[in-house]
Amino acid sequence: VTETLPADLPRLTPDTQEGGRDAAAAAARRLVDAVLRAGDAEDLTQVTRRIDALADELLAEAPSVEERLVEMWAPPRPRHDAATGAENPVAPPLTVYGDADGWVEGRVTLPLAYQGQPGIAHGGISALMVDHTLGVANNWAKNSGSTARLVLNYRKPVPLFTPLTLRAKQVGAEGRKIFTEGTLYANGEVCVEAEALFVQGHFPRPAR
Amino acid sequence: VTETLPADLPRLTPDTQEGGRDAAAAAARRLVDAVLRAGDAEDLTQVTRRIDALADELLAEAPSVEERLVEMWAPPRPRHDAATGAENPVAPPLTVYGDADGWVEGRVTLPLAYQGQPGIAHGGISALMVDHTLGVANNWAKNSGSTARLVLNYRKPVPLFTPLTLRAKQVGAEGRKIFTEGTLYANGEVCVEAEALFVQGHFPRPAR
Repeated sequence: VTETLPADLPRLTPDTQEGGRDAAAAAARRLVDAVLRAGDAEDLTQVTRRIDALADELLAEAPSVEERLVEMWAPPRPRHDAATGAENPVAPPLTVYGDADGWVEGRVTLPLAYQGQPGIAHGGISALMVDHTLGVANNWAKNSGSTARLVLNYRKPVPLFTPLTLRAKQVGAEGRKIFTEGTLYANGEVCVEAEALFVQGHFPRPAR
Repeated sequence: VTETLPADLPRLTPDTQEGGRDAAAAAARRLVDAVLRAGDAEDLTQVTRRIDALADELLAEAPSVEERLVEMWAPPRPRHDAATGAENPVAPPLTVYGDADGWVEGRVTLPLAYQGQPGIAHGGISALMVDHTLGVANNWAKNSGSTARLVLNYRKPVPLFTPLTLRAKQVGAEGRKIFTEGTLYANGEVCVEAEALFVQGHFPRPAR
């Protein structure tokens, strides 16, 4: 597992842009962290009112969910998924780069919001990071689909606040079936090993 | 899969309280949704500044992460995990009830932030909901541990904006090994089937 990536590896997940929706999502991500970080002694009544007021203002101007889904899925590449979405405050976000020989490499550091046991990422969050990286490896191999079976072996706890590396590769294909493998590392050690079956095909993008 | 739960089933995940940190987390959850729901035409510059200001204020008063971890994990039951945490804006939150014969039943409806493919929950988010429900089933059986192996079979897409039901049960134990199974349903159909191996033991709670 390399510590640094060559600067010229293509980024396969959304770049984070300076302003616009990415900046709003980044601020919301900071706020999520701040709500969790706030001490037990703090009175959150006023803060809660101000957060609610912001949400009210945005929702009052928002299009219907149906219209918004059409916007979100308009070409080019979607930027809002729950793992890598620069526009999605729930996404840490994970970033994934294309590497040589069909490998992809992902990078993420998980803050407090992704906790399961004390100081440790929730096993389901590791599953989310791994599943997504496997999917990106399939895109990189230009033969992708939907997860049909995912097998995760948890070898060591995945620490929060620590740079994590994920590696994945499509290892085979047979008709519509796609076989993909990946590993999540922390501090140079294997934490989670995964193998998955994907089946070719995606759900259609909503259109007007 | 029952449509309604008997009113007297014990709730095994945190109750949501009216004010305090739960209300702040609920507001932050609404804001996350609102940022994703905002139309492409909207100028988010002012909103971004106000969200950042709120985060700045909270973080300026916040204890260190080490101190905060001690607070979060102080007895009684923790309320901040990434799946069910009433205090965690990243958690949808999932709620889980104890049922007869060792079964537990979970309920969740996933908004836009948990999207993978169009209108469909991210496969990794289904994994998070399932993994957590299996863990709660182990707590309910009074024999719990950490996920060692998780096998997920994805049968049908998991829709957003739709009440989902999860069912899980501990099916066996052998020494420190625990075997647990579960299913995620939507609209009365099986969407994800899971089986897992857990190993007894938890990471210690941080103390001063």
